[in-house]
Amino acid sequence: MIGFHNENYTEVSKISLPITSTTINRSYAAFEFFTLANNKPFYLDRHLQRLFKTLEILRIQIEYSKSSLEKIIINLIDKNPLENISYKIFVIPETIPNFDYFKGEVFIFPFLNSLQPASLYKTGAKLLLKEYERFLPTAKTTNYIASVYWENEINKLHALDVLFYYRNTIRETSRSNIFIIKNNIIYTPITGILYGITRSIAINLIQKNKLILKEKEISIEELFQADEVFITSTTREIMPITNIDITSIGNGKVGNITQNLIHDFRQLKIKY
Amino acid sequence: MIGFHNENYTEVSKISLPITSTTINRSYAAFEFFTLANNKPFYLDRHLQRLFKTLEILRIQIEYSKSSLEKIIINLIDKNPLENISYKIFVIPETIPNFDYFKGEVFIFPFLNSLQPASLYKTGAKLLLKEYERFLPTAKTTNYIASVYWENEINKLHALDVLFYYRNTIRETSRSNIFIIKNNIIYTPITGILYGITRSIAINLIQKNKLILKEKEISIEELFQADEVFITSTTREIMPITNIDITSIGNGKVGNITQNLIHDFRQLKIKY
Repeated sequence: MIGFHNENYTEVSKISLPITSTTINRSYAAFEFFTLANNKPFYLDRHLQRLFKTLEILRIQIEYSKSSLEKIIINLIDKNPLENISYKIFVIPETIPNFDYFKGEVFIFPFLNSLQPASLYKTGAKLLLKEYERFLPTAKTTNYIASVYWENEINKLHALDVLFYYRNTIRETSRSNIFIIKNNIIYTPITGILYGITRSIAINLIQKNKLILKEKEISIEELFQADEVFITSTTREIMPITNIDITSIGNGKVGNITQNLIHDFRQLKIKY
Repeated sequence: MIGFHNENYTEVSKISLPITSTTINRSYAAFEFFTLANNKPFYLDRHLQRLFKTLEILRIQIEYSKSSLEKIIINLIDKNPLENISYKIFVIPETIPNFDYFKGEVFIFPFLNSLQPASLYKTGAKLLLKEYERFLPTAKTTNYIASVYWENEINKLHALDVLFYYRNTIRETSRSNIFIIKNNIIYTPITGILYGITRSIAINLIQKNKLILKEKEISIEELFQADEVFITSTTREIMPITNIDITSIGNGKVGNITQNLIHDFRQLKIKY
């Protein structure tokens, strides 16, 4: 597989960072992640827009525009004629910081998708509630220490992910946004979260279907009283949630509104 | 300068990590840091003990005992006959996780000390209060995203560091522990902190001087009412604090108890 770094297209296995890099020593880097649909980068414009938002928050400047990054990505897709791959973008600050901004190096590389078990879309998945808020939640960074740490418990309890709450309101899972449905109204958290690209696509589908959507703070109590719950992410698309810790959501089955959105999302991707 | 990795002693500039490493992608790594006194590693036993504590928390296993790491470090000190250097240790998990534990790779390498301005030990330094708690505070990891992020504001406001508070109690700075003195009694936070090696040495000195020390939760109000404040770290040793944000501590000058501890600590290092 071929990646991009420093104006060069190189074997991914040959791309490395010096041990003295700020990213290794200080966990400071911008991150973006997108997948392909019909060999085209899926909603790349929204991903690149978010990347530049993250760079602004982290005060990292790069020498590329959105359109020059887009050209590099199209080249990479040509050079990697493979099925089931997605791409990661890292922007890594130079080791010596200027206090006003960092100069960022751009790395783009493909990797094989980890496939989600198909059965979960029918039965729904389980989340574990954990008190946590990511630092700078609106920035997508490589700071996933909490999700790696809880992976062991997620696996032991046959859950899919951890759901973060903070000051009694739910936020996001370690890698997805969350939506709850009560009396046919759909709610999703509005603060303390990463604004996911799949979240934005789900909102478009909800609006197209003339369903009512409210972005607001959601308490833990409201979560447990929901009729349906689902999460959204690039990897998981729209994934139904039927259990939080040891509690069933609604009647414990995947609800109609969630099923319809899963269907609509797949159609959108098939026809992209 | 010569570092250690993978059973080899190598030029530090030649040590690197693949871009696919868990540490780069997920900010998950154990970290330790020690300096030298008279060319001997200063309190290495306590640093290695804490490293193994961090590894236990992060569920990383390594093939080295404390004494085998000590031998490697003695070799590195021989191979790097330089003034003013300290050493970093990283333990980096393998890319493919086992959910029960990670197999860790060990990296040890020297780097030049960043010297603290001598005047600060006479005038005292300034801290900026920020609401934040590190994830897994008792583990020393490479997760310093918050401290890099706030570096810009620290620099603009002529401060030394940020002081974290959480749920109205003060915790630690981004790289140091904090002590406050009120009516000749010394207090230091006991929860939500990294147990610093210099913190433990300062506690030893306080006890040797027959001063009263209380480890307890400290409110922001107690901080502002303190007579003296100081912070402790490997790099900064014992550093007096005379300002928090725009407020002076005590009479705004470095107090006697702090001055005596600075002196005692330096003597300890000179005679090590």
